[in-house]
Amino acid sequence: MTAERIQTFRAEITRQGLSGFIVPHADEYQNEYVPACAERLAWLTGFTGSAGTAVVLTGQAAIFVDGRYTLQVRSQVDLQVWTPRHLMDEPVHSWLPTVLRRGDKLGYDPWLHTPREVEQLAEGCSKAGAVLTPCEPNPIDAIWEGRPVPPAAKVVPHELTYTGKPSEDKRHELAAKLKSENVGVAVLTAPDSIAWLLNVRGGDVEHTPLPLGFALLYQDGTASLFLDPAKVSGVLTSHLGPAVRIRPVSDFHETLDQLGKAGERVLCDSNRTASWVTERLARSGARVIEGEDPCLLPKACKNAVEINGAREAHKRDGAAVCEFLAWLSREAQMGQLSELDAQAYLDACRRRQPLWQDASFPTISAAGPNGAIIHYRAADESRQRLEPGTLYLVDSGGQYLDGTTDVTRTIAIGSSAAEHRDRYTRVLKGHIALALATFPMGTTGAQLDTLARRPLWEVGLDYDHGTGHGVGSYLGVHEGPQRISKGGHTVALQPGMILSNEPGYYKSREYGIRLENLVVVVPAKMAGGGGREWFAFETITLVPFDASLIDRSLLNAAEREWVNDYHARVRAVIGPLIDSSTAAWLEQATERIT
Amino acid sequence: MTAERIQTFRAEITRQGLSGFIVPHADEYQNEYVPACAERLAWLTGFTGSAGTAVVLTGQAAIFVDGRYTLQVRSQVDLQVWTPRHLMDEPVHSWLPTVLRRGDKLGYDPWLHTPREVEQLAEGCSKAGAVLTPCEPNPIDAIWEGRPVPPAAKVVPHELTYTGKPSEDKRHELAAKLKSENVGVAVLTAPDSIAWLLNVRGGDVEHTPLPLGFALLYQDGTASLFLDPAKVSGVLTSHLGPAVRIRPVSDFHETLDQLGKAGERVLCDSNRTASWVTERLARSGARVIEGEDPCLLPKACKNAVEINGAREAHKRDGAAVCEFLAWLSREAQMGQLSELDAQAYLDACRRRQPLWQDASFPTISAAGPNGAIIHYRAADESRQRLEPGTLYLVDSGGQYLDGTTDVTRTIAIGSSAAEHRDRYTRVLKGHIALALATFPMGTTGAQLDTLARRPLWEVGLDYDHGTGHGVGSYLGVHEGPQRISKGGHTVALQPGMILSNEPGYYKSREYGIRLENLVVVVPAKMAGGGGREWFAFETITLVPFDASLIDRSLLNAAEREWVNDYHARVRAVIGPLIDSSTAAWLEQATERIT
Repeated sequence: MTAERIQTFRAEITRQGLSGFIVPHADEYQNEYVPACAERLAWLTGFTGSAGTAVVLTGQAAIFVDGRYTLQVRSQVDLQVWTPRHLMDEPVHSWLPTVLRRGDKLGYDPWLHTPREVEQLAEGCSKAGAVLTPCEPNPIDAIWEGRPVPPAAKVVPHELTYTGKPSEDKRHELAAKLKSENVGVAVLTAPDSIAWLLNVRGGDVEHTPLPLGFALLYQDGTASLFLDPAKVSGVLTSHLGPAVRIRPVSDFHETLDQLGKAGERVLCDSNRTASWVTERLARSGARVIEGEDPCLLPKACKNAVEINGAREAHKRDGAAVCEFLAWLSREAQMGQLSELDAQAYLDACRRRQPLWQDASFPTISAAGPNGAIIHYRAADESRQRLEPGTLYLVDSGGQYLDGTTDVTRTIAIGSSAAEHRDRYTRVLKGHIALALATFPMGTTGAQLDTLARRPLWEVGLDYDHGTGHGVGSYLGVHEGPQRISKGGHTVALQPGMILSNEPGYYKSREYGIRLENLVVVVPAKMAGGGGREWFAFETITLVPFDASLIDRSLLNAAEREWVNDYHARVRAVIGPLIDSSTAAWLEQATERIT
Repeated sequence: MTAERIQTFRAEITRQGLSGFIVPHADEYQNEYVPACAERLAWLTGFTGSAGTAVVLTGQAAIFVDGRYTLQVRSQVDLQVWTPRHLMDEPVHSWLPTVLRRGDKLGYDPWLHTPREVEQLAEGCSKAGAVLTPCEPNPIDAIWEGRPVPPAAKVVPHELTYTGKPSEDKRHELAAKLKSENVGVAVLTAPDSIAWLLNVRGGDVEHTPLPLGFALLYQDGTASLFLDPAKVSGVLTSHLGPAVRIRPVSDFHETLDQLGKAGERVLCDSNRTASWVTERLARSGARVIEGEDPCLLPKACKNAVEINGAREAHKRDGAAVCEFLAWLSREAQMGQLSELDAQAYLDACRRRQPLWQDASFPTISAAGPNGAIIHYRAADESRQRLEPGTLYLVDSGGQYLDGTTDVTRTIAIGSSAAEHRDRYTRVLKGHIALALATFPMGTTGAQLDTLARRPLWEVGLDYDHGTGHGVGSYLGVHEGPQRISKGGHTVALQPGMILSNEPGYYKSREYGIRLENLVVVVPAKMAGGGGREWFAFETITLVPFDASLIDRSLLNAAEREWVNDYHARVRAVIGPLIDSSTAAWLEQATERIT
C-alpha cells in the first residue's frame, strides 16, 4: 500500500515541478504529539514512531529515525522502497548534499519546520547547488484520501488547586520580562505553553491534554487565544476573563499581518515556531526577535503546588503499579500470560486511581526480545507470551489531574541468567549514580548524563537514547527544555524541574533493560557550599526494583544503602494504600539486600 | 596611571560621538596569545590575564573575567575605576541591556571581534534601544603613547620529521573537502592553523611559535600567505614552494575585494575570524559561507609522528621536572626557598633538555595562598617563601621541537593538614576517573568533565575552570576545538587529540591544588563494543604525585592500582634519564601505596 502511495506522491511532486519533498513527523504546532490528521509520515511510510523524517526524491527515498526506533522502522516500512538512516549520526541536512544535484528543487511545508531547521536544510541544499522551496498546501494533503478531520475537543479550565498560580500572575510576570527586553508581543505556538500560561487543558491529541491553537502574549499582560470555535465553551470564556481575547484560528494570519504593519517587535522561538509564522511576520514588516518561548522555563520549574501534586500522583501511581507487579509475580511464572494480558491488567489498575484521566502514553509491555525495541507497542493481534527465563520490560504512566507519571521496571520471569543480572545491575548502578548526584547551580543534564552511563561504558556497553526527559504537570510526558542526555543542550537544571532517570541496556533480538523513576530537582544543603547554590534529585516514583536481578557483588556500600533506603520508603508510603495480598508481595519485594 | 588613561580614553570616545567602547583581550587573529602591541586591555586596565573584556561607558567601567582570574583582576585593576564582573555567569552581551540607554552608541573594533560576537553584542545593545557601531582605527591606538611596534620574527620551516605530513598533502586533503562543499576559497586567520597547514613556525608572540599573518586556501590546493615581508627568508620561500604565494599583508584587503568581485563562495569561521573580514567580503560581493576553520580538526587529531614526538618530549620533560622535584624535596624543607628561586631552578632544568625551544607559558610557582590564584605569576620583586606546613603549586611546560608539554603538581612543604590531604585526594580521584575513562565514539569533553568533579561535588566543592584544554604539537599550549569542561561545546573527542587532565581545588587566601597530566585519545578494545568504536586516554606526562598528600582511606582498589601502575611506569621510563640523586628520590617518590 505504501508503495502505491509513494508512487502517487512522486507523481504529485513532479507535477509541482519538485525534485523531492521532506516529510517530517510534525504538525503546525511543532509538537511531538500530533493529531491523526497530521500523521503524514505514518500515512506515507507506515512508520508510527514519535520522531522521524522522510525524504522522497525521484530515484530514492530515505527515512531518518533516532536510536529508539532503529529496530521498529525496519519492521514497519517497506525496505524495497525506504532506506532507514540514523537521524543523529547523519542529520538530514548533512545527507542532502550527498544526494541532491545542481538545479534540484526540494520542497518542504513551511508549517512543519522551524526557521532553524529551514536554515539548516537550505544550507544542505545549497552545498549541492540545489534549492529548498516552500510548498503550501502540503502535497500529501492533496492525495491523502480519507484524511481525518482536525480534532476539536473542548478546552477546559485547569483549576488553581492543581496549577498553584493564576494565569493572570503568570501573564504579568512574563509581560514584565517582555517589556524589559523591549518586545511588544510574543507568539506562542507550543500547545503546552499555551495550556500552562492560561491554566487550561484540551483533548486534541491522545494521552496529553493539549489544546491545539495559537496565542499571542502582549506587553500589557493581555493575550489573544486563537482556537477553533468548536473548542470554546462559556466555562472557558469566563475562566479566561476579559484580558484573554478568544478568536477563531482564521484570524491568526491577519493578526500577524497587523503586527507587521504596526512595525511591532515580535518574539518568536526559532526552534519551536513554524517558519511560516516568522516568514509571514517578517514579510508584513514586523521586527522578528529570536528568543526562547518565554513560557518554557517557568513551565519547567514547577511551583510548590505542582510539586506536591506530582508527589501525590506518584503515590497513587505507585500503588497501581505495585498491584500490577504483585499480580504479575503470581501469574507470570506459568508462562501463559501474554504481553496484552499484562498491559490490560496494568492499565486497569491505574484507571481505578482517583484523579486518573488517561495513560500518559501507550503502555510498553515487552516480553523477551521485544524489550530491545525501545518504543515497542504490543500489536492488537500479539499473543507474545512472557516466558520463563526471559526479561519482561514494562514502561507506562498516567495522566492525573495533579501530575503526570512515567515509570519503567524490568522483571525476571522465573529464573534469570548471569548476563541479565550483570547488565541489570550496571543499569541500576547508573540509575543510582544519578539519583545520588549533587551538583552546583548551572549544571546541565548533559553534564550528568555520563554518570548514568559509566558502569556500562566500563565494559564497552551503552544505550542509544537519552537518560532523562522533562515531564510536565498534567501535560506532556516529554517536556523541554530540561533533559539529561548526551546532546549539546545548555539548559541548567533548576529546582522544581521534573525529569526521568532512565538508563537502559538493549541487546538486539534478545532482551531489553530499562529502569525509570521520575525525579524533582531540589535544593541541597552541602557542607562545602562555598557560597554557591547546590542541587540534588528527589526521587518521586515509588515502585520496588526486582531484587532477584541485582548482582550484589557489583554494588558498593553506598549503592546498597540507596536501594535499601528507597525500598524502605516505598514500603512505608505505598504499604497503607494497597490491598493485603499486594502488601504481602511488597513486604517481600522490599526486603533489605546485603 | 590607569585612572588617567581611562580619562583620556573617555575623552577620545566622546570626541568620536560614542557613549562607550568595548575593549576585549584580542588581536586581529582572534588568538589567545597576543603580541605586546595588541595588549590594549592590559594597557587600559592593568589586568594582564589571557582572557577578559572591558566595557567603558561614560558613567561606569566594567571588566569581565572568568573564574581563573577573579582574584587576579582585583589585585591588578583600580577598583575605584573598574567593577570586576564574571564573564561566564553574566556575559557582556547579557549585561549591556541593563546599563545602556536608548540612543546610546557603543563602539567596537571590528578587527577584534568575530561575527558571532558582534551579533550577540548587537542584540544586547538593541534590547536597550542602543546601537553597536564599528570604529576603525581603534580609539585606544590614537592615545596609546609608546605603543610597541608589531613583531616581525622570521617564519621558519617546521621539518617533516616533526610534522609527519607534507604541507602539500594537507592542502590537497582540505582542498578536496572545500570542493565537495562547493567552496572556492577558505580564509585562514588563526595563526596556529596557518602554521599547521604550511608546516612553518614563527616567533611573533611569547611562548608559542606563531607566525602572525593571514592565508587563503584555494580549491586547487594552492594557498596565499600574507606576511610582513620582514618575516620572509629564502629558506621559507623554498620550503613553501611555488604553490604557496607569499604576499605582503597590505595585499590582503585587495585580495578579499577581488574574491568578492568574482562572486566567489568563501568559507569563513564566524567564531574565529574577525568580523572585519566577513564584512569586507560580503560588501564586495562574495558569498560568505559560515563554517569551521578546516584546519581545526585535522590539526587537533595528531598523526602518529606527532603523537610519538609528544611521547618523547614528555620523557625529557618528565626528567626535568623530576630533577626539580628532587631538588625541591631537599631544599624546601628549611622554608628559605622563594617562589622565584624554585621557578628559576625548574626553568633551568627544562632549558637543558634537547630540542627545548621555550617555556610553553610563564611558569606558575605559587606558594601557600598564591596557589589559589589560578593563573598566578610570581612578580619579579616577590620574595614569597615556600613555608613549612603549606602547599606549593607548580604549573609549567615546555615547547620542544617534537611536542608541547604542560604539567602541574602540588607538593606538601613539610607536613600537611588533614584538610589538605582530603582535598588533594578528591582532586586526585577526579584525575584518575578521567584517566581511566572509556567512552564511545561521539563523546565530548563536556560529557566527561563531570567524572573529574564528582568526588568534589559529593561534598559541595568544585573548581571554577575547565578540566582539560587541547594542546598543540609544538604550537599553542591551549588549542581547540577539543576540551574537557562544563561548557556546551559539541566537538567529539577523537584519536590523536591531546588534552590536559587537570582538576583542582582552590580555597581563597589559603591554598590551591591542581593535578595536571597530558593525555592522548587512543582507540580502546572493549569486550562489549557492540560494533562501535571505543576510546580511552593514554597519559603521557611522567612525573610522580606527592604520595604524602594522598589519604589512602579515600581511594578504592582501582584508584590505588592506577597510582601504583602510573608510578611504576614513571620510574621505569624516567629512571634511566636522570642523575643518581634524582633517581634515588624517584625511587622513594614512586613507592607502592597500599
